[in-house]
Amino acid sequence: MVDTVGIVGLGLIGGSLARRLVRRGVRVVAWNHRSHPYAQAEADGIYCKSTLAELMSAEPDVVVLCNPLKAMPSILAELKPLLAKSPRTTLTDVGSVKGMVRDQVKAAGLGECYVGAHPMAGNELSGWQAADPHLYDDALWAVTVDEDTAYQRFYTVASLITHDVANRIIVLDDETHDKGAAMISHMPHVVSTALINELVANPDRNVAAALSAGCWRDMTRVALTDPDRTRAMVEEDALNVEILLRRMAAQLTAVADQLHNGDAAATKQFFAAGDPFRRYKSAVAAPDASFARQELEVPERGWQQTLLFSARRGEAITGFINPRQAIIELRPAI
Amino acid sequence: MVDTVGIVGLGLIGGSLARRLVRRGVRVVAWNHRSHPYAQAEADGIYCKSTLAELMSAEPDVVVLCNPLKAMPSILAELKPLLAKSPRTTLTDVGSVKGMVRDQVKAAGLGECYVGAHPMAGNELSGWQAADPHLYDDALWAVTVDEDTAYQRFYTVASLITHDVANRIIVLDDETHDKGAAMISHMPHVVSTALINELVANPDRNVAAALSAGCWRDMTRVALTDPDRTRAMVEEDALNVEILLRRMAAQLTAVADQLHNGDAAATKQFFAAGDPFRRYKSAVAAPDASFARQELEVPERGWQQTLLFSARRGEAITGFINPRQAIIELRPAI
Repeated sequence: MVDTVGIVGLGLIGGSLARRLVRRGVRVVAWNHRSHPYAQAEADGIYCKSTLAELMSAEPDVVVLCNPLKAMPSILAELKPLLAKSPRTTLTDVGSVKGMVRDQVKAAGLGECYVGAHPMAGNELSGWQAADPHLYDDALWAVTVDEDTAYQRFYTVASLITHDVANRIIVLDDETHDKGAAMISHMPHVVSTALINELVANPDRNVAAALSAGCWRDMTRVALTDPDRTRAMVEEDALNVEILLRRMAAQLTAVADQLHNGDAAATKQFFAAGDPFRRYKSAVAAPDASFARQELEVPERGWQQTLLFSARRGEAITGFINPRQAIIELRPAI
Repeated sequence: MVDTVGIVGLGLIGGSLARRLVRRGVRVVAWNHRSHPYAQAEADGIYCKSTLAELMSAEPDVVVLCNPLKAMPSILAELKPLLAKSPRTTLTDVGSVKGMVRDQVKAAGLGECYVGAHPMAGNELSGWQAADPHLYDDALWAVTVDEDTAYQRFYTVASLITHDVANRIIVLDDETHDKGAAMISHMPHVVSTALINELVANPDRNVAAALSAGCWRDMTRVALTDPDRTRAMVEEDALNVEILLRRMAAQLTAVADQLHNGDAAATKQFFAAGDPFRRYKSAVAAPDASFARQELEVPERGWQQTLLFSARRGEAITGFINPRQAIIELRPAI
């Protein structure tokens, strides 16, 4: 169904996506703010364009914005008149916050053709030289919609991801996405940074570093990535991160009080509270874990809610039999 | 110098140590509270004994207590009369808190022959069946002493670790050890547990879990290990953990306030505060990183302070030329 995809930005995420799509037989046109990756990208079968107008002349079914978030307003402004001439083209992106991107897209007058997306893929590297089609192996994408999203627009992006990229999707509204991302990534990045700050402030930091092993290495890995990029990510999801940081601070203070008072029963309760996640994790990670699949009918009205509830049950869409019949994978719930 | 080593407890840590010492030509006698590992241990060249009295009859130069901390008082009581008849034998242990163990050792009247030790080695497994001599590859041990420790006792344990186990050591007092371990392990274990508790309490926990990737996986790995074992470790180092938890809570609250107030300058400062650790880490982890070695003279009086200051500078002892000349490795400081 998708014939040509336009990729805006050939960094780690965009470059990896472009290379994966080419390998899987999709025609890919690309534009990057600097042309340095073009020779290698062309050798990989990606048609590189010197302007966004040229990219749009290739009549892409979907344009995927893989540019940095800070470049979003200017790129959207440049795309606005081009997309007006190409009503079939659906616009999507790969940003790690979705509410803010939709606001920018709407401000640019492009809300009608937009469906949000966020692939759960990435590593500590960046740039075209790190691009690798295997970055998306087994990845899950969040696809974000609102009450005004046309189903055909959603279905185009969902088909691209499930069929052409061969990944799974869950469908969310922007707020649910941004809250979830704050929970499992944005807030923990702040916590990881606070850990290394605490070490630096410790008078016996060299002794502590010498004693450190696997626990410390794993818990501070994300604090070693570019702190400016992390800060931007956190500030873009500020409200959700703020709420979770206050909850975490309250938990840590409660444990400190329990230790102070020798309240062993409360500490025991604290350490047991995460058991549902431990059980979920061992079920999902079991070497023989396999997940049943079944069909899910997508209604014409209220399809957004149907798909959101499916995601809340822990299900993910792996493909479509037809636009109204999705195939979902059933995973253990927490 | 060390001819025979007695190992008390053939779990992951004791079993791995026993197997490594046998491979490196040391005679190892062992006792375990249950005899189920004995057939395999004997096949590996470990002489298994049915009582602690039999173990002591082998006249070990060093006895290493690798039993669980909760068994410590009863084992120390049983060893007391046996060690009285074997004044040459030095007692050490591998516990993850050192102040409490020394208190127990002193309470048993065994302070004179004791030197503390804590190998920075381990994994999420436990028991003899997981014992592996490679567990100690490149490991660093903390060796803990106090003002009353006889240098000969220290030197016996230090030689065992550097020469026979082929590991590095840093020399600390109990308090410095327990504060450092709280910083890089005990407190972070609480933080990791608080993260999974927060997810479990989140109404959209299944969505959040679906969105989770490397950051979440790494930051919650230690929360998946046996929560009772983690709780015991935290409670044994309660005061140090309490202080650090309050500091972490204050940091997280400060960032929440900054995000609330849009105080970008303060948030930028928060994300930059860990830079000294980032620089240290990239220096230590560089593929071509190599560390100069030099000799350190160990004075007869005040040797504890000399070795503690060396550890505080980021140095580690790799061996000895003679009892008064240590070889130290110079690592970047934070």
